[in-house]
Formats: sequence, structure tokens, C-alpha cells
Amino acid sequence: MSDRLNVIVVGGVACGPKAASRLKRLMPDAEVTMIEKDRIVSYGACGLPYYVSGEVERIEELMETPVGVQRTPAFFEKVKGFKTLTETEVVRINRTEKTVAVLNLPSREEKTMSYDKLVLATGGQPFAPPIPGIDLPGVVQLHHPDEAVLVREKVEQGRIKNLVIIGAGLIGIEMAEAMIKKGAKVTIVEMLDSVLGALLDEEMGLLAAKPLKAAGVNLVLGERVQEVLGDGKGNVCGVKTDSRKLEADFVIMAVGMRSESKLAREAKLELDGNGHILINEFCQTSDPDIYAGGDCVSNSNPLYDPGERLFTPQGSTANKHGRIIANHIAGMKEAFPGVLGTVICKAFDTTIARTGMTEKEAGRLKRNVESILWTGNDLPHYYSGSNPLCIKIVVDRENRQVLGFQAVGQGDVSKRLDVVVTSISFRATIDQLAYLDLGYAPPYSPPLDPILTVAHVMQNKIDGITRGISPLEVKRMIDRGRDDFVLLDVRLPKECEEMTLPYEEKTVFIPLGALREKLESLPRDKKIIPFCKLSLRGYEAERILSANGFKDVAFLEGGVLGWPYEVRKKMGEEI
Amino acid sequence: MSDRLNVIVVGGVACGPKAASRLKRLMPDAEVTMIEKDRIVSYGACGLPYYVSGEVERIEELMETPVGVQRTPAFFEKVKGFKTLTETEVVRINRTEKTVAVLNLPSREEKTMSYDKLVLATGGQPFAPPIPGIDLPGVVQLHHPDEAVLVREKVEQGRIKNLVIIGAGLIGIEMAEAMIKKGAKVTIVEMLDSVLGALLDEEMGLLAAKPLKAAGVNLVLGERVQEVLGDGKGNVCGVKTDSRKLEADFVIMAVGMRSESKLAREAKLELDGNGHILINEFCQTSDPDIYAGGDCVSNSNPLYDPGERLFTPQGSTANKHGRIIANHIAGMKEAFPGVLGTVICKAFDTTIARTGMTEKEAGRLKRNVESILWTGNDLPHYYSGSNPLCIKIVVDRENRQVLGFQAVGQGDVSKRLDVVVTSISFRATIDQLAYLDLGYAPPYSPPLDPILTVAHVMQNKIDGITRGISPLEVKRMIDRGRDDFVLLDVRLPKECEEMTLPYEEKTVFIPLGALREKLESLPRDKKIIPFCKLSLRGYEAERILSANGFKDVAFLEGGVLGWPYEVRKKMGEEI
Repeated sequence: MSDRLNVIVVGGVACGPKAASRLKRLMPDAEVTMIEKDRIVSYGACGLPYYVSGEVERIEELMETPVGVQRTPAFFEKVKGFKTLTETEVVRINRTEKTVAVLNLPSREEKTMSYDKLVLATGGQPFAPPIPGIDLPGVVQLHHPDEAVLVREKVEQGRIKNLVIIGAGLIGIEMAEAMIKKGAKVTIVEMLDSVLGALLDEEMGLLAAKPLKAAGVNLVLGERVQEVLGDGKGNVCGVKTDSRKLEADFVIMAVGMRSESKLAREAKLELDGNGHILINEFCQTSDPDIYAGGDCVSNSNPLYDPGERLFTPQGSTANKHGRIIANHIAGMKEAFPGVLGTVICKAFDTTIARTGMTEKEAGRLKRNVESILWTGNDLPHYYSGSNPLCIKIVVDRENRQVLGFQAVGQGDVSKRLDVVVTSISFRATIDQLAYLDLGYAPPYSPPLDPILTVAHVMQNKIDGITRGISPLEVKRMIDRGRDDFVLLDVRLPKECEEMTLPYEEKTVFIPLGALREKLESLPRDKKIIPFCKLSLRGYEAERILSANGFKDVAFLEGGVLGWPYEVRKKMGEEI
Repeated sequence: MSDRLNVIVVGGVACGPKAASRLKRLMPDAEVTMIEKDRIVSYGACGLPYYVSGEVERIEELMETPVGVQRTPAFFEKVKGFKTLTETEVVRINRTEKTVAVLNLPSREEKTMSYDKLVLATGGQPFAPPIPGIDLPGVVQLHHPDEAVLVREKVEQGRIKNLVIIGAGLIGIEMAEAMIKKGAKVTIVEMLDSVLGALLDEEMGLLAAKPLKAAGVNLVLGERVQEVLGDGKGNVCGVKTDSRKLEADFVIMAVGMRSESKLAREAKLELDGNGHILINEFCQTSDPDIYAGGDCVSNSNPLYDPGERLFTPQGSTANKHGRIIANHIAGMKEAFPGVLGTVICKAFDTTIARTGMTEKEAGRLKRNVESILWTGNDLPHYYSGSNPLCIKIVVDRENRQVLGFQAVGQGDVSKRLDVVVTSISFRATIDQLAYLDLGYAPPYSPPLDPILTVAHVMQNKIDGITRGISPLEVKRMIDRGRDDFVLLDVRLPKECEEMTLPYEEKTVFIPLGALREKLESLPRDKKIIPFCKLSLRGYEAERILSANGFKDVAFLEGGVLGWPYEVRKKMGEEI
């Protein structure tokens, strides 16, 4: 045996190549071997929907470096200096001997390789629910480039006309956009009552559904798929849910990921309660010579109690794990700080994002929180390309710490997400968020960036300076037929003509500029809920009414643009 | 006298209206009067260049609310509940009596008004250097909407053909873009040696100049304007610098802002060493009943020693001051945390931004810092619309705190700026920046966001894992004719053909993939400076060479795209 450090990396996508490359840079003398069961390595898996949509022209682009060099075993050998075995599976770990049993898949030959350090970057697998028909050839999961190639080929040949996507998660949404662009009719069936239901609060999920519906996606929510129907000749012909039958000639399964932890489990490495490999802050498993990272592990979250884990498979996290692993093997004890559950997703012209805790999750964790839904524009109104954002933030009522952010909008959500991610990472209070010296010029932001304005409104709410009411609560009052409140639309008549909440019978119309003069036309014995297009004038109306002795006033958070249910547009069109 | 709190706000743009509006929301019973010497109030001054360019169609848009209501005195009275006096100047403050002398400008009538609290939001004035010809009618400063209207009218009538802008600051750059779009020939004359010289380090200023030159702006750097030349009939006909005469039929003065602090000075309120009104964290002046905010004050900066002040007139800061002032008058002791000197600016297809400390400033403040220049793309290379960014960060070598950020690029600079602003606000170390859970999906970011990658390279550099060299230093070595180094271009031959550094005689060409095999062709007695298009392969080459016993290797930070001087393009074109 040589005296060079011998490292085996299992898994050739994201975490694996990152760990191997970094390690060779830190320890040029180490012997590093990366083992991958597939025939290809190091592809940009997150780019698959964009290959299907045609945004990415050639599938090879997802396996290339920025200058067009294929990331093959030869590339890794020459450029990065480590060996890669493809079509080779690690089938067993012998922790006592510090060896792995390695199976060459084409030849079925097995051999034993020894390691000083072992890195498990075995990734994840899409969950395949045990329902009849799931094995039909017209059902894929969009996890491997081959599947993306198949789907694009079929849809370009006109052989996918009616696509059913099972699952309204990230892949489901990205694939809906890709396939609509390619001309398919797309239905998404989702067990939960809203889009991205595991990631967003109810009203945000409803807002996230709007761009999908607007683009023609048929959203079937709250139904469970029971069977993929075949025509007897091996073709998909439909999908049966618990309450209907949907036509389909192709099905994409996108109900979520499971970590690939079999190897670890069989080696008796510790797993978390959900079967993900358990790692410490250096990405070490319960065996300190075995590391794990990427989609096969769960993570800590600084917002959680110690010990509680979050599974959030992301290429970004996998790359960070790879770096932490290489650093630790090389003797640099850099700790991974965990994740906040950040997610961002493009849905047609809209961006959907979240980080930290939802209000729902805060409830589950019994945190005493305040939340606000806010709507506004990302740029000054006079600057072209100014677009709306609906932002919800969640704040700890006791220590005023920002706990969570969700947003849906055509405006620049991504920047505001990352500002809040950074803020939460440093345990920012809402008061600190409120005065950040963010960049201001008209092409980039209004003088007070949306995220600062949201923080200001939250301060007002938490300090009792204003009272808001969530659209969910208003909808419940309407649905229960309550008549102890009025909606007060303070917009200009021309705005009301363009788009309104479909409850004119409950609405009083007084433009904000006339409100001070017309106070007497409002009932003093009912709750008054002022609103405008966004939130600002609704808030100002609340202040005016409260200052004039109205006892029960709360502005509608998010206004008309943030109303998560149908609104009535000019010409009676409901969206 | 009434027992209502009586507040007078001096100044009707940004800070003034914000303070007055917020105060009326917090204290509906307060009597609030806003006094403005101009005939218009509350316009979006930062939007003026965008009116000139035609991006904003009507000048009124800059004075309207988002739904098109003009922010007139009547609007403020009706909607916000406070009085506005326009064309009225506060000429004296009597602090003992707590009164102000107020002059109605059209009637020249003076009267006395008393206050309980006084707010000075007197703004700033563009600096007018005392040179001959500055009073010619063809010289404007682009500070007032009337000037913007005049300039646009003239350029649209073809009456501005040769524009000289004096000053390569923010307004200078924004106006250059606006006027080039309108068909004028534009020259910028700047006393300093680079663009935005007061805000950026030398190499970043050089990079910031590139999009201006590429768009056809004639940049005259390092020259001082001595005179604006007239034709004797009142028209501008040229600009004389200390080394040449430039043709001009119109001149825009954009050499910087001065705070308007005369009123405060005459009232013997404390000013800082540069003549800006001095305020505490609640925006109180040395007289606790007199507040000040916006462009007439200087700010604290958490990166500075206490007592050191920063003057950075920004609409964003002015609005925050207004809110802090209203809060404090209403009894809410919220402290303004200061500013970091954040600036962002659009220059044609490029964004230029900075926050915190430059290396230059860190030197002045005797901080022991490390810096890095990095070039990379804002999105995965396979995603369309992926664009380059050059980022420089400055880190305290002792406590590893991030101190500063500068960036120039066609990619999304704005998001990375705000992430670093937030990080610096929370005194982040480079190690904390390195693992933020920022949003990742291909339409928004590569798996490791540029800002994380920059942090990783900085960690490597500060920990001695890699060695980089700044382009400034390489250029100095070249200029001095030194022959104890070689440049090593590790790009592919096709890339080298497209664009190279114009020093082929000093360059060895070995693509990264062949480097391990061709080590012997490199001299072991010279410094080797590997580089690529960006920085990554240059860094990898440095690692390979150092691992193979080369003693003096440092990769060229920023690569070819970040090279601040001329590069040679295919066909011999220099840019």
C-alpha cells in the first residue's frame, strides 16, 4: 500500500466532483478516485427542464465546462488530476477493513478497493409512488438526461399532446412551463390543496398558481392519483385520480425526492428519522472516516432546534458540501452552517421563492409570530419594466427576528430573496432589515427597496401602529356570509373599472383623496377593511379612519394584486 | 397658541414629504407644515436622466404617485393631511423663540411662524466650480426638472450636437447614456484619472470606463476644466481644459453635490468638518428640537471610527431619515444605523456598483486588508442571458470581516451588491459569506452564486491556498519592461484567437488540459502568471504548477475579461 492518502468518492454529480476536484487542489499527492454507476458524470441536473424547453439547445451543454469542454473521466484526469470510474457501482462498504466492493456494471466483475477516507455523494432518487401503471414506458421522472432527451424528442415529434404531471413541486412547475412552450397541453395533479404546498403558506400557494393558470396549465389540486392508465399496448392513455379520469398520452412523475442512502444504511451508518444520512457540521457521518454530502443527506437549519433536520436537495448545497468535505479531509476544519430551506423557481413570467419558516411551519414549531403580506413594485413606477411583487414575511413577535420570506411576482424576487436569506443568516431583526443601505438607482429599485418597505409595514403592524388583515381571513368572512364588515375600495374610479374584487355588494368606493371629506358615509358599527391596488393607500386609509375614531379598521394586506382568489377584470373576465 | 404639536418641515423633496406624511400617520393631531422654496414638490430627482433619455415619457411622471395623481400641495392636504407652502423660503431660524422667518417669494412678504419641532430637509446643490463661462445659458446642472426639460427639448430639436459633461460621477455617467441615446456626441471631462474615481479603486474605475468608451463616449480623464468658452453671443462654443480645447455647444456640470446648510449654519447648528449638518442617530441636530435629514446632512458609517462622517446624498437615505425623524418626534426612539456608501449606476448595458470600503480607502484608514478581483458569469453558462461580472471584494486580514465590494458587469450586479450590503451590515466574515443559502435555480444563479465563489477564492487567498496577482501589478511589471516573468494563457486555442492580452511576446500558450504534460516547457526561474478568460482555470493552473514545484506562481485575477486595459480582439481591434 502506498503512503499517499487514498480517497474514494461515490457519486459523480455535484458533490462528488466538487469534493474530488477541491481535494486534489488542496492535496495534490492524494490518490482520489470518483466512482459513478451511470455512464455520464457531472451534469447540470437542474438544467434538464431548460433542455426540454429548448432554452438549452444541446443536452451536452449540461455536461460541458463554460468553454465547451466535456466533463468526461479523461477531463477529470487531465485537468483535475483524479480518476473516474463510470458504469461502476459501489455495492458494499466494509468499515472495519476500510474497503468498498465495487461492481463493474457492463462486465459484472466485482473487485475490492481500499480507502483511507470515503465520500458518499450518492444523491437522491425521485419518489415513485406504488400505483398501477407507473412502470409504463410513457411515465418518466425527469431525473436523468436520457429522460429529458426522450421527452423533448417525443414532444417535438408531436407525440406528447396531453401531458399529466403528477406533483406541483419545483420540477412539476418547471416542466409545465417547458412543455407548454413545446406546445403540449399540460395538467398538473397535486395531492395538496395548493402549488408548492410543502414550501409555501396557503395564500402564497394560491398566488403561485395564478401564473400557471394564466399560461393555460390545467391545475387539479387536492386530488390523489390512483393509477396511470394504459391502453393495453404499453401506451399511457390516462390518469385516474380519486375523483376523475384525466386524458393523457404521457406522464411525468414529480412527487418529490428521496435520498439514496441504501449503501450507508447497509453499512450501519446513522440515518435521520426520515432515512437521510446523518452528518455533522464537517459532513462526517457516524463513521469519521466516511463523509457524505449532497442529496443523500439532511441538513441542520439555524432556525430549528439542534437535532432537527431539513431535507432540501439542491445543487447549491451539494457543491458546498463537496467543498466542506475536501477541506476537512485536508485538515481544514470549516463548519457548514446549515441551510434555511431556500427555494427559487421560475413559472413562466413569474418568480416564486421562499426561505426560512412559513407561518404554517412557525405554528408547528409553536413560535409566536407575526406575518404580513405586501404587494408593491420592484422599480419606480415611472421606470419601464417595473413589475409587481407579493411578499410575505414572518417575524418572531418576541425577539423581532426575521424568520421567513415568501414571494411571488413578475418583478425581481431573486434579489429580495437573497437579501432576506442573508439577513436571516445573521439573525437580523425586522428593525435591522428596515434600514439596510441597499443599492438605489431607478433601474434597480425604488428609493425604499420593497424589502425595506415590507419591513416598515411589519414594524408598524407589530408595534400596533397599523392593523392589517390577511386575504385568507377576509375570504373566510365573505364565505361565511358575515355582514358585520364592509370593504372600502380607496382607488380611483378608473382603477376600479379595470379590476376589482368580485364583492361589489360589500364594497364602498371612496378614493383616498376624498376619504377625509366623506367619513360620515361609512358605518361606525361595522369593521371597515380599506384596500387599494397594492397596500399603501389601504394602509393610509386605515390610518385616517383610525385617527377619526373608527374603532375597527384593518387594511387588506396585499390589495387587489395580492388577492389570492379570483379578481374581476374589465369585461367581466375572472382571473 | 394651540396645544397641538406644531411641526415645520423645510424642504419638499424626499426627506421632507416622507417626514411630514409619516408624522401625520403617527400623530394625526399634529399640525404639520411643509415649506418649499420651489414651485414644485416631491419629485423623483433621481429619475431626471431617465426623463432626458425618453425612458420616462412625461416629466410629470416624476411628480406623480404610481396611479398618476400629482403630488401637489392639494394632494398632500387631502391625502396626507398636512399643509404645504410652495415658493416660500425659510430665511432665518430663531432658536430661542422657536420661530422661523418665512419669505413668500412672489410677494416678497415675510412672516414669522413658530414651531415646536423643526425639520431641515434642505437638500443639496450641485457644486459650481468658479470658472469663467459657467453662467452661460448653455451650462446646466441637471438638478431641477426644468433643466431636464430644457436639455431634452434642445437635444430633440437637434440643438445639442456636441455635449461636454464635466465630471465622471454618477450624474455624468447617467447623462452620458441619456444623451448618446438622444443622438448627441458626448465627451466627459474628469479631473481624476478614472471614472467614478472617488468611489472605486483604480482597476474598477478602468473597467467602469469600458462600456462608456464602447458606446462612443469620448472620455477625457485627468484633465481639469479651466473655462467654458462662449461665442460672444451667449452660446457655449467649447470647453478649455488644462491641456486642450474641446468643441461643445452645451455643457452639463456634474462635479458633485454640496449640502445646502446655510440656514443651519446661520442658526449656529453644529456642522461637520465639511460643512454638512451634523446629526445624531435620531437625526437630531445640536438643537434637540431641530432635526435634519437627506442631502443636507452627513452620516455615520459602521465601518468607520465613531465621529468620522460620510456624505453620500441618496434618495434612499433621505427617505429613511424622514421616517426616523417622524418616529422620533412621535416618541419612538428608533436609531438610524448609518450608511455604507452604497452606490449603483447603470452605464449602457453595464451596471457599476460599490459598497463599504475600497482598497484605497482601507489604506487611508490603515486597515490591514486583502482584496481580490474576480470575473465570472451571473447564470449557468448554458442558460441564455448569462452575463459576466467583475467583482472586487476587500476583507480585513485580521478579523476576516468583509469590508467592501465593487462590481462592474453586464450581469446582475444589483443582487450581489445587496447581498454584500446586508452581509457587511451584520459584520459578516468572509467565511460566513462563503456558505449563505442563497437562492439557486438556473434562471437566477449558478449552483454556487458568484458572490459565494468570490468568497471562496478570497478564503483561498487569505489562507495561503492560492496566490493571485492584480492586473494593476502585472501592468506595472509589463510597463517597467521586466523580463523575470511569463504570462501563461491556459485557454483553448479558439478562445485565444477571439481575444487576447496584447502581450503575446510575453505569453506562453498551453491549454489547461495539457498543462500537466507540458510542465517542462515552462521556465522554473521566472514568475509564472497563468490566466484564462475569467479566473477559474488560471487558479487551477496555479494549483497545478505550485503542486509541481514551481516556486513563484500567481494567477492573474479577473482574467482576460477583467483586464482593465486594452485587450486585443480578433481582427486586431483593441477595446
